[in-house]
Amino acid sequence: MIRQRYRIAVIGVGYWGPKLVRNFRSSPDWDLVAVCDRDERRAREVVGPRSTVEIETSVERLLARDDIDAVAIATPAQSHAALTLAAFDAGKHVVVEKPLAPTSEEAAVMIEAGTAAGLTLMVDHTYCYTPAVEYIHDIVAKGILGHVLYVDSTRINLGLVQPDVDVFWDLAPHDLAILDYALPGGLVPEHVSATGADPLGAGKACIGYATMPLANRGVAHVNVNWMSPTKIRRMVIGGSHRTLVWDDLNPHQRVAIHDRGIDLAASADVGDVNKRRDSAVSYRLGDITVPALPETEALSSMVTEFASAIREQRPPRTDGLAGLRVLSVLEAISESLAAHGQPVRPGEPDLLLNGVLS
Amino acid sequence: MIRQRYRIAVIGVGYWGPKLVRNFRSSPDWDLVAVCDRDERRAREVVGPRSTVEIETSVERLLARDDIDAVAIATPAQSHAALTLAAFDAGKHVVVEKPLAPTSEEAAVMIEAGTAAGLTLMVDHTYCYTPAVEYIHDIVAKGILGHVLYVDSTRINLGLVQPDVDVFWDLAPHDLAILDYALPGGLVPEHVSATGADPLGAGKACIGYATMPLANRGVAHVNVNWMSPTKIRRMVIGGSHRTLVWDDLNPHQRVAIHDRGIDLAASADVGDVNKRRDSAVSYRLGDITVPALPETEALSSMVTEFASAIREQRPPRTDGLAGLRVLSVLEAISESLAAHGQPVRPGEPDLLLNGVLS
Amino acid sequence: MIRQRYRIAVIGVGYWGPKLVRNFRSSPDWDLVAVCDRDERRAREVVGPRSTVEIETSVERLLARDDIDAVAIATPAQSHAALTLAAFDAGKHVVVEKPLAPTSEEAAVMIEAGTAAGLTLMVDHTYCYTPAVEYIHDIVAKGILGHVLYVDSTRINLGLVQPDVDVFWDLAPHDLAILDYALPGGLVPEHVSATGADPLGAGKACIGYATMPLANRGVAHVNVNWMSPTKIRRMVIGGSHRTLVWDDLNPHQRVAIHDRGIDLAASADVGDVNKRRDSAVSYRLGDITVPALPETEALSSMVTEFASAIREQRPPRTDGLAGLRVLSVLEAISESLAAHGQPVRPGEPDLLLNGVLS
Amino acid sequence: MIRQRYRIAVIGVGYWGPKLVRNFRSSPDWDLVAVCDRDERRAREVVGPRSTVEIETSVERLLARDDIDAVAIATPAQSHAALTLAAFDAGKHVVVEKPLAPTSEEAAVMIEAGTAAGLTLMVDHTYCYTPAVEYIHDIVAKGILGHVLYVDSTRINLGLVQPDVDVFWDLAPHDLAILDYALPGGLVPEHVSATGADPLGAGKACIGYATMPLANRGVAHVNVNWMSPTKIRRMVIGGSHRTLVWDDLNPHQRVAIHDRGIDLAASADVGDVNKRRDSAVSYRLGDITVPALPETEALSSMVTEFASAIREQRPPRTDGLAGLRVLSVLEAISESLAAHGQPVRPGEPDLLLNGVLS
Repeated sequence: MIRQRYRIAVIGVGYWGPKLVRNFRSSPDWDLVAVCDRDERRAREVVGPRSTVEIETSVERLLARDDIDAVAIATPAQSHAALTLAAFDAGKHVVVEKPLAPTSEEAAVMIEAGTAAGLTLMVDHTYCYTPAVEYIHDIVAKGILGHVLYVDSTRINLGLVQPDVDVFWDLAPHDLAILDYALPGGLVPEHVSATGADPLGAGKACIGYATMPLANRGVAHVNVNWMSPTKIRRMVIGGSHRTLVWDDLNPHQRVAIHDRGIDLAASADVGDVNKRRDSAVSYRLGDITVPALPETEALSSMVTEFASAIREQRPPRTDGLAGLRVLSVLEAISESLAAHGQPVRPGEPDLLLNGVLS
Repeated sequence: MIRQRYRIAVIGVGYWGPKLVRNFRSSPDWDLVAVCDRDERRAREVVGPRSTVEIETSVERLLARDDIDAVAIATPAQSHAALTLAAFDAGKHVVVEKPLAPTSEEAAVMIEAGTAAGLTLMVDHTYCYTPAVEYIHDIVAKGILGHVLYVDSTRINLGLVQPDVDVFWDLAPHDLAILDYALPGGLVPEHVSATGADPLGAGKACIGYATMPLANRGVAHVNVNWMSPTKIRRMVIGGSHRTLVWDDLNPHQRVAIHDRGIDLAASADVGDVNKRRDSAVSYRLGDITVPALPETEALSSMVTEFASAIREQRPPRTDGLAGLRVLSVLEAISESLAAHGQPVRPGEPDLLLNGVLS
Repeated sequence: MIRQRYRIAVIGVGYWGPKLVRNFRSSPDWDLVAVCDRDERRAREVVGPRSTVEIETSVERLLARDDIDAVAIATPAQSHAALTLAAFDAGKHVVVEKPLAPTSEEAAVMIEAGTAAGLTLMVDHTYCYTPAVEYIHDIVAKGILGHVLYVDSTRINLGLVQPDVDVFWDLAPHDLAILDYALPGGLVPEHVSATGADPLGAGKACIGYATMPLANRGVAHVNVNWMSPTKIRRMVIGGSHRTLVWDDLNPHQRVAIHDRGIDLAASADVGDVNKRRDSAVSYRLGDITVPALPETEALSSMVTEFASAIREQRPPRTDGLAGLRVLSVLEAISESLAAHGQPVRPGEPDLLLNGVLS
Repeated sequence: MIRQRYRIAVIGVGYWGPKLVRNFRSSPDWDLVAVCDRDERRAREVVGPRSTVEIETSVERLLARDDIDAVAIATPAQSHAALTLAAFDAGKHVVVEKPLAPTSEEAAVMIEAGTAAGLTLMVDHTYCYTPAVEYIHDIVAKGILGHVLYVDSTRINLGLVQPDVDVFWDLAPHDLAILDYALPGGLVPEHVSATGADPLGAGKACIGYATMPLANRGVAHVNVNWMSPTKIRRMVIGGSHRTLVWDDLNPHQRVAIHDRGIDLAASADVGDVNKRRDSAVSYRLGDITVPALPETEALSSMVTEFASAIREQRPPRTDGLAGLRVLSVLEAISESLAAHGQPVRPGEPDLLLNGVLS
């Protein structure tokens, strides 16, 4: 049985576009037909020599072609909604670089348009396609960790001060998208509290901390930072049974399951400080297990999922709604940050889409 | 020249007391005369066999002895003030396990009493006597890091749920005491914002996050957690010139100075997202230096400093005021935690002591 | 039931003696009666102030006392045999710092004397009492690793050039004693091949490599080095089923069991180099398990074992024969080293003891 | 100024060929004209869709083309000499995957042919083009480490049992090529001693250890292993002034310079074992420096060097002679391994080439 190869064009070859070009090009599910960017020379450079992949410098011309089934949009966020709506008008499926849009309102309109046109809308939450996050999703879903008590996510690095967005909008979409995929029920916190700092006077937060309650008294915390000389991408998911540590920059041991924790019953009767030494046994120190994970490239799985979702006429793993939930939390973070940490309730995706999808 | 050996007694041999016993015993500055605890058998066990160190079960009897110059108090925090005042009444110098007292009011009274009696009051902020923190203090004071832009402190572990205090009061005194010693001017933040969680229903926060602004738009963040299966004690001090990373559990490389950072001038003119790839050079990647630090035990330096302060009739490195500043921030953290992260202004040590020390 | 406390004296308080003093002192199985060293001041310093442990400066006087059941000998190796024989003459049990003796001949005489006197002779192969090595011994004995295919042991550090011995005699006794305890049947290699270097002109090898075949085509390799700026204490035990990695300086993960290896059947049919990419699946990548190990001090277990062996009138875990086997291999290493790596057959412990124990 | 782009073809697309294809393709110095492999489908797959790079299935046809300046040979070692000679006959420059040839005799013939034809012969000792090895070469050459006292190289992994070669011939060429480039004067040891094991009965060594003396009483040791579940690529270069540690799998800290070592003068007067504790200061514990290294791909630098050597009509960094020196040591290793570790003197490159190059 031969699977159909869909024909794709990549729009925008700034930072992310070339990665999409490489992955669509080498995927058995896709035929990369064209690359589109106003900067023709840059586009040609990305495609490389001795290639018959076509270069387009006009989106209109590109979308007017009938030898293209889908487009991947890797332009600045401000242009995502307009390009997506034009692509749907032209009958093309769409995958969009994160964030889905600059506002949840625009995201809602994009979702509506895709639904109305019967075309696939996907957001490239790349991390949700890494073997580590796929493993995390499964192990949480199977209850192996127990209830999720806390999530602590650190994503710090020496990064560029972005011209258009602060550190939350640059980095936290990754953490939030992962949480949205990994947590049962998705990411719909009751409120969000965020603080940050701009110690360089860049005009926007370069360091950010956000806390949001999870179900059952749990908590999630996200720490993002553009100014760290050490690069850390680490997420801890503490469960009532076991705790998972994901250290994305440690290839020898990306994910570890710690069968250890504290036993409240045992420690609750510690009434006398002098007994502290005796009650030191009240936490459980079990084994650590490091699962063998495949070393597949996330973007390769992402482009496969895009093709599968089109073929099977089902929502992709990271559909427009996932993108919308992430945007709602980001907007609440911005509002709380401006109010010095006061809790802010995110907009509810269902309400945004009300009247639209019903 | 022979230095005078002061005669000391340790009060309380729960968790911390035995460590004090061991260090006073082996110090050339001290003669450990007696150990005092209501539990005579425990005290005898701590002193060990074939020893002539005396055991006292009554504080009154202990303080009435005239062969003792000073006492080290390692009892629950609730008793610190009463024991300290009694010791000052009996003419003994005092060092107290952290926290100095359960409230800043009591701490202020203790400071006043010591000043009035002309006796030394010291709080055992042990970390301030580690070679790493001494190095950090020096390098910050010399300006080698430049201005402090941010501090990020993580102190997480599988810990016991304490009967009397939450995770902030158990663990954060360490971070705050270190900041108080390392930052020029001590720790006097304008306000503090704290969030936390009690996912086990222990009746108190087991996970905590606190943010506080520093001078010049800087920020300090403290993350404490009793429920982490991995033990992390890590502090990052980001400066305008260099950044210091202190990883206390890595004996091979406890402290590292990173000569790297972001250069705002270079990145500010990034006006076009498509130029992102080009501006990737706007951060500076210099060398890392790992200084050779001595491997001395902090408590050993602490007991030496206690003797030196008495001998030289000067305030010790971690005097009562340092303890008071830490308590003021802790009280503000508790208040903010109860108010879901709302910023709270710590009480000013100067005001607390007003009328007292003037 | 109250266990008998044996009365012990420690002879020699150079580098190792003080550690023995501390452990015998705090052991419930032992009563430390006296410490013996020609340097009375040093002995008194080690015992510490306010102690009634007695100081002896004469071994003869010490051994003549009838309030001592056993002695721990921590003097230079040259004196081990004479002191041990004198102690047996005086009816005392003996534990000796490693190496048991400077030669296997002297070791054989010591073993014989202990057997004849009906007294316990133990060698302090400290590592055999660490939780890690106890775990390794058990897991090898239970067959969880399968057959032992290879052992790779690295013990490198910035060390002192010893006045009396080369790096093999200083460091390799640890590796060999561990192998002797961990391998089924003990360490009795058919031959040993050793190379080394003295790049500083110290007059003895400061860097050493030794290879010795194990049963069933296996191999053990030991790498010792006094000149390494990084400290490594790492042993890998590759088995036909699983491989164990022991990294003694990583407290977070001292021992890890890797359920991975190569499958010969699968890789044997790789006849064409162009197929290399396809046969990359012929090794098995299973999970890693990190067992929770207790954090007990090895010397504490060692002194307990010494008491138990005396009480139960059985050979201790590291008896004289274990010490003799290690010495036989060390002597072969020295001989091979002088002959630039030529294989040398170690003396057989059974032959050395022939006539003696029969 | 525009540099000339040379036209290249890659011969053989097994494991290494595709990496060469990718790097020649993206190099501004090269125009990848054709890929040659008997397996046309595989070649087409490597080139990818929508490409005009040509596929050749006959080496004869390929070499007969006049639009090709050079070839990169990535076929099994047995074919290297024949293909190289044919390429020289056709007037093409040649770069060959390591090892240069299966025997030093063939290598000598290849060198002669290249010299006679006035064409470039290069061996792809890839590691010599990594930023780490370039840094190592420079720092050794500048004398910053002092004299090289020892080199310890570990290259272990879970690898495939190769059909044609043992673990030394598979892995050690990397270590030897690095040594050849990094050591002043290249790798010309007086003798080599090698041991190994074949615990699986694979018919060839799967574990290997080789020791070889360096100038001035120094030593180099190489440890290669196909059966290690953990992957280690680590080289330590101990110098009389400083020691360099290269941990290739640690991207945060690939190279570290340790300013520490032992001071013989200080430790030589340790005549009394009881003084051991006092002489512990005789080694120097200075700082560690971690240089910032670029993250460029080695193969990209390699193809650049190939073009530069052709353009400048000079020997490339890793020329045929470098390949020949590595082969001479490998042949001595094989001979010593068969003789159970007996020292074997490598053939001298100068003698092999005698009559040839003169």
